[in-house]
Amino acid sequence: MPPMFESPLFWPAHIKEDVLYVLDETLVPAKLKYIPVKNVKGAVVVIRNMKTRAFGQFLVVLNTFILELMPDTKSGVILSQQAKDYNLVKHLKRVAQELNNSRPTFPFAEVTGIITGVAQKALGNGADVRVAVTKTVHGFLAGIRARRLQRVQEIAEEIKDQDSILTHCNVSGELAMAAHLVAQQGKYAKFFATETRPYMQGAKLTVWELQQAKAPVTLVADNAVASLMADRLVNKVIIGSDRFAANGDIANKIGSYQIAVLAREFGIPLIVLTQPSRGVASAKDMPIEMRDADELLIFRGKRIFGPKAKGFYPGFDVVPHQLITKAIAINAGL
Amino acid sequence: MPPMFESPLFWPAHIKEDVLYVLDETLVPAKLKYIPVKNVKGAVVVIRNMKTRAFGQFLVVLNTFILELMPDTKSGVILSQQAKDYNLVKHLKRVAQELNNSRPTFPFAEVTGIITGVAQKALGNGADVRVAVTKTVHGFLAGIRARRLQRVQEIAEEIKDQDSILTHCNVSGELAMAAHLVAQQGKYAKFFATETRPYMQGAKLTVWELQQAKAPVTLVADNAVASLMADRLVNKVIIGSDRFAANGDIANKIGSYQIAVLAREFGIPLIVLTQPSRGVASAKDMPIEMRDADELLIFRGKRIFGPKAKGFYPGFDVVPHQLITKAIAINAGL
Repeated sequence: MPPMFESPLFWPAHIKEDVLYVLDETLVPAKLKYIPVKNVKGAVVVIRNMKTRAFGQFLVVLNTFILELMPDTKSGVILSQQAKDYNLVKHLKRVAQELNNSRPTFPFAEVTGIITGVAQKALGNGADVRVAVTKTVHGFLAGIRARRLQRVQEIAEEIKDQDSILTHCNVSGELAMAAHLVAQQGKYAKFFATETRPYMQGAKLTVWELQQAKAPVTLVADNAVASLMADRLVNKVIIGSDRFAANGDIANKIGSYQIAVLAREFGIPLIVLTQPSRGVASAKDMPIEMRDADELLIFRGKRIFGPKAKGFYPGFDVVPHQLITKAIAINAGL
Repeated sequence: MPPMFESPLFWPAHIKEDVLYVLDETLVPAKLKYIPVKNVKGAVVVIRNMKTRAFGQFLVVLNTFILELMPDTKSGVILSQQAKDYNLVKHLKRVAQELNNSRPTFPFAEVTGIITGVAQKALGNGADVRVAVTKTVHGFLAGIRARRLQRVQEIAEEIKDQDSILTHCNVSGELAMAAHLVAQQGKYAKFFATETRPYMQGAKLTVWELQQAKAPVTLVADNAVASLMADRLVNKVIIGSDRFAANGDIANKIGSYQIAVLAREFGIPLIVLTQPSRGVASAKDMPIEMRDADELLIFRGKRIFGPKAKGFYPGFDVVPHQLITKAIAINAGL
């Protein structure tokens, strides 16, 4: 049974003609506005400013190669196809570099390396680089979409009748779509969403998305997790992950670690949605990005605390695999 | 060595002539504004709206009896002193009742019961009720002040050179004053303050207060506690408590419980500032107040989440005594 409801967060970036439209998730739920991105510079800006997050950033990275395949008409010199392809591969490698440098915690290099590898190989084989890259990117996108839709069903299977599920941050559509599917299957489940300070992804995205899916949802302060669990108001935790290591460790939105510790304390299973772990043995190999303290100190454009205030804001924390009950992986087929 | 620095939060309510001035802690640090309270009705409003918190509410409760001792000039009938005192005791009992009903988690009845007891006893003995109550309240206030100043010194003794201390919510001046004292004693200590959503007492009060005390302080999201501890960035936790039970359990600002669980997980001592436990055997005897969800959903007068959003906001949670390393009690001498 395919999901009948698709959240805008499930697929937050798409190309139309020669522009990539990226959902500005920082404005949701007040507005559904898409940011037009025309090249790698624009892509780096939306990634670095967290206009879109984990999966959206992955979509931006992949689609940026399509944007950057646009013919180079700047040079007045007429080049052979081979010379053009040679320049194009060089160009795509620079694009990859810029994307890789945009955020330290994300394994963009794994993705961009595959694309530049395809381009390099096409060049070596005398194939058309543009065609090879386009085909690869489109293939990836179609595969990921199919696998994510499948995972929505796997999440729905994990959700039993009368479950009360705590989630943190936002898992980009999948949980809301699973919630919708669960209701269609005749099961009653309710949800608690943490606010997820400082960005409030839980309050802004998850609550909205679950409401769109007509699922019962209650917002709680990040501070209320132990209280919820001690009072037996939740019996399952489902969160996403930004990185997954071969040993099962994850990195996810700051606050995930403490929720995991508390889940174990109260004997509540923790289910994690993961991606491929390619090349990362354990959490030790995941650099944790420190975000600008202003993201903590400024709310809706206004400085909410004194000008002398210092803030400490790691974007992510690490959940050791020992605390994870079950991982629902997505094999992106890359 | 007495503290050289006194935080406005240390003594946030005082009577001047026939008005009680209560620091509006919801405006700190932007403004230091005192709300004039003239009678028990006004007192209940500042308590219920959390204009002042734990200790400030206690000050309001005690001082309200002084406000309500003002001569009853409403009745045109000239009464004997005994009849006046009889009416006054009846009146003070009504005042006590209104204060007791203002917030369920606080043990106001313990305090108000003592005051009405003193009034009743004075009436029985033919003593002047007004004098007896005034003397009792003033005696309490002086005793509490002396004991709190002493506790500031005890907290300072707990803080060692190079300590890095996490705190949650706000402990009404004592921690900031201890921090100032610690520096005077030539010890270097730094502080991390949680934001303490949804009221942000940590971000608004604690950061400001520690800055006033010239102590190094960094704000962290409530979500960052496990990360701070895992990275060994804090080696001690000091929090206050709103209630203390005979078995050592405390009730404190929502979020305290999870910090306590995390402190044990990472082997970090948890020091708690407590009050007398009078009449409360364990946390089970402490009703936990559910605050209006709008306090979570509205920020600075604006609804920040969708109108359909539901919120869950217990004002407090309970920390079982097993998780508490040390309690620094205040014996209020009541």
